[in-house]
Amino acid sequence: MSHPLPSQMRAVDHGAGGDVSCMTLAHAALPSVEPDGVLIRVHAAGVNRPDILQRSGKYPPPADASPFMGLEVAGEVVAVGQQTTRFRVGDMVCALTPGGGYAEYCATPEAHCLPIPSGLTITEAAALAETFFTVWANVFQRARLTAGESILIHGGSSGIGSTAIQLASVFGASNIIVTCGDQAKIDYCLALGANHGINYKTEDFVERVKAITDGRGVDVVLDMVGAPYFQKNLDVCAVEARIAQVAYQHGFKAELNMQALMMKRLTWTGSTLRARPKSAKAEIAASLEREVWPLFSAHLAALRPRVHATFPLADVAKAHRMMEAGEHFGKIVLTVAPGAQVHGQSVS
Amino acid sequence: MSHPLPSQMRAVDHGAGGDVSCMTLAHAALPSVEPDGVLIRVHAAGVNRPDILQRSGKYPPPADASPFMGLEVAGEVVAVGQQTTRFRVGDMVCALTPGGGYAEYCATPEAHCLPIPSGLTITEAAALAETFFTVWANVFQRARLTAGESILIHGGSSGIGSTAIQLASVFGASNIIVTCGDQAKIDYCLALGANHGINYKTEDFVERVKAITDGRGVDVVLDMVGAPYFQKNLDVCAVEARIAQVAYQHGFKAELNMQALMMKRLTWTGSTLRARPKSAKAEIAASLEREVWPLFSAHLAALRPRVHATFPLADVAKAHRMMEAGEHFGKIVLTVAPGAQVHGQSVS
Repeated sequence: MSHPLPSQMRAVDHGAGGDVSCMTLAHAALPSVEPDGVLIRVHAAGVNRPDILQRSGKYPPPADASPFMGLEVAGEVVAVGQQTTRFRVGDMVCALTPGGGYAEYCATPEAHCLPIPSGLTITEAAALAETFFTVWANVFQRARLTAGESILIHGGSSGIGSTAIQLASVFGASNIIVTCGDQAKIDYCLALGANHGINYKTEDFVERVKAITDGRGVDVVLDMVGAPYFQKNLDVCAVEARIAQVAYQHGFKAELNMQALMMKRLTWTGSTLRARPKSAKAEIAASLEREVWPLFSAHLAALRPRVHATFPLADVAKAHRMMEAGEHFGKIVLTVAPGAQVHGQSVS
Repeated sequence: MSHPLPSQMRAVDHGAGGDVSCMTLAHAALPSVEPDGVLIRVHAAGVNRPDILQRSGKYPPPADASPFMGLEVAGEVVAVGQQTTRFRVGDMVCALTPGGGYAEYCATPEAHCLPIPSGLTITEAAALAETFFTVWANVFQRARLTAGESILIHGGSSGIGSTAIQLASVFGASNIIVTCGDQAKIDYCLALGANHGINYKTEDFVERVKAITDGRGVDVVLDMVGAPYFQKNLDVCAVEARIAQVAYQHGFKAELNMQALMMKRLTWTGSTLRARPKSAKAEIAASLEREVWPLFSAHLAALRPRVHATFPLADVAKAHRMMEAGEHFGKIVLTVAPGAQVHGQSVS
């Protein structure tokens, strides 16, 4: 049994790309459902930094992806492919998408969908996938953060940073140190579970981390800043530490002294999420559901995504302007269907 | 029961350090045996590149190590500490040492000793520890080379390179590619088990590896060259590849474009052996004995260390000159006690 579906939907079209003014709310055909996929009626869609890059034409989507932006959604399953085995029409899910989340309907593989953790709103659930997949795959799977270890999280108040603080805290990190650009963001991170905040505009984070850790350094560094931090990240590492690189927001070229890599037996690794094959994302989803989803019941307050603001789909330009200004704490979410709750400083 | 031991021994003293002429065969007190250690009457001692650095004053030994050079030996246990549990006076062992191998007697922790694989001469056994510990810890433990994967081994004809070819081959690597400085060394590597040899003086190894692997790149890179190869190593990596850095023979500073690290999800790691705590070396020894030592019986010819030349302890200057010239294939060994066999182009 399936709901009667319209033939058309509204979606954010960024045309040839450009600044926020390039986006319009257009009519488009509903996406087709793959045999192993589902079609979701989007209630809410998360806004992420790669969306900004895609809009401005700097991060073209993979060839087989939706032309529309939007890497994560929450909503109701309204159609399923023949090879699906789990979710049924009517189920509420949160999902990582191959793009196309900024729309009333979005198609994604069934294996990239997860049940909505009990206690979360749809809007919060829409803000889960991109950062949970990214932090889990990089900080926990690749960089192997374990209980009792310390972590330095750059961009602590970003979506990625907020999720990293929350997961590190719930998984028993001994010392969670963040860098932020002002005291309000540091306070936000401390409230989320960070133990120490460093204002990178006024303090040298290498010196401060060394002081905080009695000269030992940290076991894991999560970085999205890139080039200007490469050498400092190596310097701030403890013996056997791991650096997880999830973006290069300020470049990827630098003059480096790599002596510490060998002398301290470091591991420098990283990954992008979007380019990975369907099966790899399905493995991350399965690992998240097994290792992290069960923790929501006992740690709901600690793990609840921090939604800074919501905007109706038609106000996507405001959402992008807010992310570009970098003044937000946590996530920005687009509300698409009436079921999506309004959070934070939302204006409709 | 213990053998009567002399109070003095001969050992190579490099004084304040310098060129090969700084070394003399001096008289010294026997090293004392730690409670968890053994004293070995050295039959043969391997020569390694860090010895050259130590002699020239560029690599001072750890504070608690012997002042003498020599990181690996084979010989007879002649005294054991009170806390030892395994080896007894009279046992023949090969061992990693904290220095002091260039001598008639050498003390080392019992846990850094291994039985001599059946079928090896004492001289060959003396050439095992440093390269087997280094290659095992870096290529197999840190960089996780597994059967069916490809590996690029720089310095293929060096001690480290030779051991890496042998172990990669026995563990089922699909494609073993080496770089060397001339055709004779390439031929030597092919005879050891390499599938492809690249002359780095006349060929671009990035282009050649891409051609050999149909553009895919390799799964593991073993590098000891350092700075001039950093960028090329990143370029030559397949998706999810690992780089194991075991030395920086040509420097550790370079201008780097790190984009590939994230885009290809690479892991760049490495380690030194000497600086590691006793317990870490003991773990590597235990892993080697469990995973590698049993393979000697079925793969003796494939795993037998290649001893290029042997020199009596008194001719240590000749051994160092040979290593400095870089014209050797495989290992150079000092014969100390009469039991040590003469290999290769030895002259006494």
